[in-house]
Amino acid sequence: MRRIGVIGNSVCSEEVIQIAEEVGREIARRKGVLVCGGLTGVMEAVARGAKAAGGLTVGIIPGNRASDANSYIDIPIVTGLGYARNVLVVQSSEVVIAIRGKYGTLSEIACALQFGIPVVGLQTWEVSPDIIQASNPAEAVIKAFDLLPH
Amino acid sequence: MRRIGVIGNSVCSEEVIQIAEEVGREIARRKGVLVCGGLTGVMEAVARGAKAAGGLTVGIIPGNRASDANSYIDIPIVTGLGYARNVLVVQSSEVVIAIRGKYGTLSEIACALQFGIPVVGLQTWEVSPDIIQASNPAEAVIKAFDLLPH
Amino acid sequence: MRRIGVIGNSVCSEEVIQIAEEVGREIARRKGVLVCGGLTGVMEAVARGAKAAGGLTVGIIPGNRASDANSYIDIPIVTGLGYARNVLVVQSSEVVIAIRGKYGTLSEIACALQFGIPVVGLQTWEVSPDIIQASNPAEAVIKAFDLLPH
Amino acid sequence: MRRIGVIGNSVCSEEVIQIAEEVGREIARRKGVLVCGGLTGVMEAVARGAKAAGGLTVGIIPGNRASDANSYIDIPIVTGLGYARNVLVVQSSEVVIAIRGKYGTLSEIACALQFGIPVVGLQTWEVSPDIIQASNPAEAVIKAFDLLPH
Repeated sequence: MRRIGVIGNSVCSEEVIQIAEEVGREIARRKGVLVCGGLTGVMEAVARGAKAAGGLTVGIIPGNRASDANSYIDIPIVTGLGYARNVLVVQSSEVVIAIRGKYGTLSEIACALQFGIPVVGLQTWEVSPDIIQASNPAEAVIKAFDLLPH
Repeated sequence: MRRIGVIGNSVCSEEVIQIAEEVGREIARRKGVLVCGGLTGVMEAVARGAKAAGGLTVGIIPGNRASDANSYIDIPIVTGLGYARNVLVVQSSEVVIAIRGKYGTLSEIACALQFGIPVVGLQTWEVSPDIIQASNPAEAVIKAFDLLPH
Repeated sequence: MRRIGVIGNSVCSEEVIQIAEEVGREIARRKGVLVCGGLTGVMEAVARGAKAAGGLTVGIIPGNRASDANSYIDIPIVTGLGYARNVLVVQSSEVVIAIRGKYGTLSEIACALQFGIPVVGLQTWEVSPDIIQASNPAEAVIKAFDLLPH
Repeated sequence: MRRIGVIGNSVCSEEVIQIAEEVGREIARRKGVLVCGGLTGVMEAVARGAKAAGGLTVGIIPGNRASDANSYIDIPIVTGLGYARNVLVVQSSEVVIAIRGKYGTLSEIACALQFGIPVVGLQTWEVSPDIIQASNPAEAVIKAFDLLPH
């Protein structure tokens, strides 16, 4: 099973929700396991997309209760770690797709680059040439699978 | 998906390995997802048992590399947290089965009891009447499923 | 600076509060730095005792806000890790004194024994001969200092 | 006690070491407690500077052994958390000074901005107008103290 991480905001526009859902669907179509933060916004939309295409979803949540996970998460990982759980979302992914996002997403992108985990960006922070930019969801997922370690 | 945690030593006797494998098989037969620490000893034996019966296995590992997980883990959660990852194994389980074990296992049992997560014991620490003792693997798994929250 | 950890409940009786305060005073008289969880109950009483004797206090807190620390903490370490911060309290101490306590304290005692950090017990869990029992606060602190690694 | 965090690389040039030492001295002169990651490079230089001016230093280290801390750390906080300890360095500081740095530092800067902890930058990432830029060590420390919450 290949693990594709998706990161982004817990609050986002309808446009971003559409993008995240499409990313989730494409990951599931390619038999990837979705790894995300398990909450709302991008995390919920990408999980909903993955489930719509029959995928498997893992949500690494910051709080103490599995019920904090959105309803599209198959396997909640209950950390109780608060913000530090972001590091686990990144480290548990073989490649990361970043969708828009603010400082939390920037912190995760930097963390991935620090670990040498490839990052594909969709309308997100452009702070480094190491971020592989994509112009739409399908392209982002294709690039992510191409970047998977062998 | 119901999440059944199994805890125990990373080094153990052949007898304990047999017990752990049988526990893993029984969990998988009942369609439970196995949650464990992902390394050797009890963690490897229980995952091997679960895979032999067609189950799904999650390994929450202490190090930084997914390749640290034993070869029966489907989904490694890479924490890099060292010993603190034990708290995540416990919190991510709906019920915990403890097999033998030393201080690390005692710490996890106490952690589960603290959180109100039911603990089934197989030849393990008897430090509290809150630990539900079982006399063999099949009984332990039956009791564990009975203790699952509704 | 020698780091003496003290663990125990966040809710406790007046008798336990007296014990904890005396432990704090004795640690400070011997120029030890107090390491604790930084909240209420035993954690507050021991810090109050340490400050009364001119000591330095470190509180490793589970939440996200330094203001969660009790008012006798000089240096709050803000972890946001929830329950997993207990592992840090133990690991950051050179020796641990356990006062009474329930499952949370048991988990920390087991964690210390696992790491090879000496544990002195005051009216606490007697689950192992590796716990050095003491019969009063002064004796506990004397034994703790004797157990410090060279 | 006011807690001033300093972040930067574990490997750095002689020029950056000079800057970090001066930052450490200025923090100590203003009676600030230095919070840092406790290892080499910027972390060691800033702690050396702080001790030279009679300050108090806290090192929140990623590994399991207090002896991993550099020799200018008064109080090692032993986390065993690996990379996730960066979040604790940031959260435990009332203000953060970032000196140069690569992706690890970028991740910490983003983390601080996410938490609303003020960031002063010295020759570091300029990814947001929320980072208060300074042109020399003394100015950075003056700005950091000015940004402390009341």
